[in-house]
Amino acid sequence: MPVVGMVGGGQLARMTQQAAIALGVRLRVLAGAPDESAALVCADVRLGSHESLADLLAFAEGCDVVTWDHEHVPGEHIRALEEAGVVCRPGSAALLHAQDKLVMRERLSALGAPCPAFAPVHAEDDVTAFAGKHGWPVVLKATRGGYDGKGVWVVDSAAEAAALLPELLAAGTPLMAEERVDFRRELAALVARSPHGQGAAYPVVETVQRDGICVEVIAPAADLDPETAAHAQELALRLAEELGVTGLLAVELFQTAEGVVVNELAMRPHNSGHWTMDGSRTSQFEQHLRAVLDLPLGDTATSAAWTVMGNLLGGEDPDLYPRYEHVMAHDPGAKIHFYGKGVRPGRKIGHVNVTGEDLERMRARAAHAVDYLRDPGSVYPEEREK
Amino acid sequence: MPVVGMVGGGQLARMTQQAAIALGVRLRVLAGAPDESAALVCADVRLGSHESLADLLAFAEGCDVVTWDHEHVPGEHIRALEEAGVVCRPGSAALLHAQDKLVMRERLSALGAPCPAFAPVHAEDDVTAFAGKHGWPVVLKATRGGYDGKGVWVVDSAAEAAALLPELLAAGTPLMAEERVDFRRELAALVARSPHGQGAAYPVVETVQRDGICVEVIAPAADLDPETAAHAQELALRLAEELGVTGLLAVELFQTAEGVVVNELAMRPHNSGHWTMDGSRTSQFEQHLRAVLDLPLGDTATSAAWTVMGNLLGGEDPDLYPRYEHVMAHDPGAKIHFYGKGVRPGRKIGHVNVTGEDLERMRARAAHAVDYLRDPGSVYPEEREK
Repeated sequence: MPVVGMVGGGQLARMTQQAAIALGVRLRVLAGAPDESAALVCADVRLGSHESLADLLAFAEGCDVVTWDHEHVPGEHIRALEEAGVVCRPGSAALLHAQDKLVMRERLSALGAPCPAFAPVHAEDDVTAFAGKHGWPVVLKATRGGYDGKGVWVVDSAAEAAALLPELLAAGTPLMAEERVDFRRELAALVARSPHGQGAAYPVVETVQRDGICVEVIAPAADLDPETAAHAQELALRLAEELGVTGLLAVELFQTAEGVVVNELAMRPHNSGHWTMDGSRTSQFEQHLRAVLDLPLGDTATSAAWTVMGNLLGGEDPDLYPRYEHVMAHDPGAKIHFYGKGVRPGRKIGHVNVTGEDLERMRARAAHAVDYLRDPGSVYPEEREK
Repeated sequence: MPVVGMVGGGQLARMTQQAAIALGVRLRVLAGAPDESAALVCADVRLGSHESLADLLAFAEGCDVVTWDHEHVPGEHIRALEEAGVVCRPGSAALLHAQDKLVMRERLSALGAPCPAFAPVHAEDDVTAFAGKHGWPVVLKATRGGYDGKGVWVVDSAAEAAALLPELLAAGTPLMAEERVDFRRELAALVARSPHGQGAAYPVVETVQRDGICVEVIAPAADLDPETAAHAQELALRLAEELGVTGLLAVELFQTAEGVVVNELAMRPHNSGHWTMDGSRTSQFEQHLRAVLDLPLGDTATSAAWTVMGNLLGGEDPDLYPRYEHVMAHDPGAKIHFYGKGVRPGRKIGHVNVTGEDLERMRARAAHAVDYLRDPGSVYPEEREK
C-alpha cells in the first residue's frame, strides 16, 4: 500500500488519518511536536519543522506522495523537494496561488475569474491612491501567512492607514489592498482534481463567519439558485484545472447581487468541507487522498437533505469531556469531531455535524451542541449562576 | 480525555481507532505484533500477549476502561484485572457467555430465549444419545475458541461421530451437541448497552454465509415482518440487560418458520455491524466507545434505504492496491475498508459498503467490488485468459 506523507500535524492531518485507515493507505505526518493533533492519532509520526528543507527531505524519503496540512511550507522548499524527485501534490506551482494572495489575484484576474479590485501596497500612498479609485474602506491584507481573519485589516480612512501602515511596512509584511465587496453571504465551492485530470465537485455550501472565523457551514447553501451554484462549481473546477491543482481546492466566494466573487483559495481539506464527513458519501479527507494518489474520485452526493456543521471554539473551561454527556443525551444524532488540541478561548478545537430534513432545526441542533461544549452557561444561564 | 484500552490488535480495534479519533478519546491497543491491523494505525500500541496476565495488568495501567477486540482473553485473567480494580467492559461475568457456548446455551435457556436443543459432550455416546432424541445430523461444536465456522462440525451419522470424536476428545476440546436448525436465513440483532443501563438497537440485518464465513450483510433485512424485527431487537436488548453486557452485543439468529432462534453471541463490534460505518448515523465502533465509556448512546437511524456490506476475502494475488483503480472508477460510491492485513486466500481482509435505494442493485455493486478486489478474473474471465 502506498505511503502518503502529510506535512503538518494539525486537525486536517488528523482527520485524513481516519480516511487513510479505511483505504489501508499509510499516512505519515511531519509534526512539530508529539502532542499535535495528528501526532496523537497516527502510527507514523516524524518530528521536524516544515520550514527546514533537511527535515522535509528526510520526511519525504519513502513517501509515494507528499501533501500538505497547511500552506506554510516555503515555496522554495517545495521546489527543492520536486527537484529531488519527490512527488508533491499539490505542487509548488499550484500551491503558490494559495500561499500568496497577490499572486492569486493576478492569476485569477488574468483568467477572467471574478475578483475584487486589488493592488500591491509598498507604501502608505498606495493605499490612499487605491482608495481614491475604489473608495473607503480599503481591505488591507498580508499577502502571505494570514488565516482565520488574522492578517486582514479593514481600513476606513487615510488617517487609519497612516496609523496602521508604518509598523506593518517596517516589519516587512508584504501587503496588498482590495476593495471591500458588498456581499450578501459567503459561499464555498469545494472540488477535487487528480493528476489524470479527473474533477469532482461537492455541492456549494454557505459559510457563516463571526470575527473572521467560520462558525457554521450549511450544506448545501439554502436558496441558492441552481445557475449560480453550477457556475460556482464550474469556476472552481476550471481554476483547479488552470492552476494545475492536484488534491482538493476550496474556493471561498462572496455572493453579491451580480453573482459570485472569489475571496480566497485553499488547496487541502478545508473547514468548509468538514460537513462531508457525515453528510456526503465521500468525505473530503478520503477525496483528497484519492486525488493525490491519482485514484478515481469518490461520489460527492449528499446522504441527507441538509448537513449543518458548527465549529467548536474553545471556551474558558478546558475540560470539555464532562460536557459530552449532556450533548450526547440531548441530541443522539449530533456527530462530535474533537481535534485533541489544547483548549484556548476562541481556538478551533473541533466541530459538530448534524444531518436531517429541517434546516432550521439542524442549525439549532448544531448551535446547541457547540455552544454547550464551549460554555454551558451560554445555553443555560441559570447553570452559570449556581 | 479518557483512555480506552482495547485488548487485541485486529480490524475491530483498527476501526475503533477511526471513531476514537472523532471523539478525541485516546485508544490504546494491546497487540501481539507491530504489524497487526490496529497496531499499524494507532499511536499508542503496547506489544504483549492477551494470554499473559502480567502483560494485561501492565497494559491496563492508566486506562480508564479496558475492552476487547476478541473473546480470547482467558476469563480468569479478566477476573484478576477486575480484582485489581481495572474497569473491564464488558466484564468477565457477561463475557463468559460469548466465550463459552455451553454456558451461553444454559443461561439463555434458563432465560427462556429461543435456542436449539443442546447437550454437553464428554464421550462418543453423548452424541449418539443426543441423536437418538433429536435425530441426525447433529451439530458438534467446540464450546470455546471457534470462529468463522472453525470449531463446528456437522455430523451425519454414528459412523461419522465415531470417526471424528476420539481425536477431538483426546485433544481435550470441550464439546457440545446441538440440533441442526432448519432455518430460512440468518439474521443479526446488534444492540448497545451502557453501564447506566441505556440500550440502543440497530435495525435487524440479514447475514449471508458461505463456507461458514459471512460474505454479505443486508441492512435492514429485506421482507422481515416488523413484528419479528421488533421481537429480535427486544430479545437482544433483554439479553444485554440480563447478562449485564456493557458495550455492544451482537446476537446472531436463525430465522425459522416459527420465529427466531439464537445462534451465537458476540460482545464487541461485529462483522454484521460493519454496514453502520456508512449506513447509520452512528457507527458501531463509535457506539461501542460510547457504551464502554458510559456516555449516552448514539442515534442508530439509517442514512439510506439500504446498505449492503460485502466482506472482502483474500485471493491468490496479495497485491490488492492496483485493483482499487477499477473498483473506484467503476463505482465511485463504493466505500472500501481495508484492514491492512496480510492477504491470504479466504482470509477476511476488508469490506465494502454501498448504500442506496435499489437493493438488488446494491447487492450487485457490493459483490462486484469485493469479487474484483479478490480476483479480477472472477468478474471478467477474459482478463484471466490474457
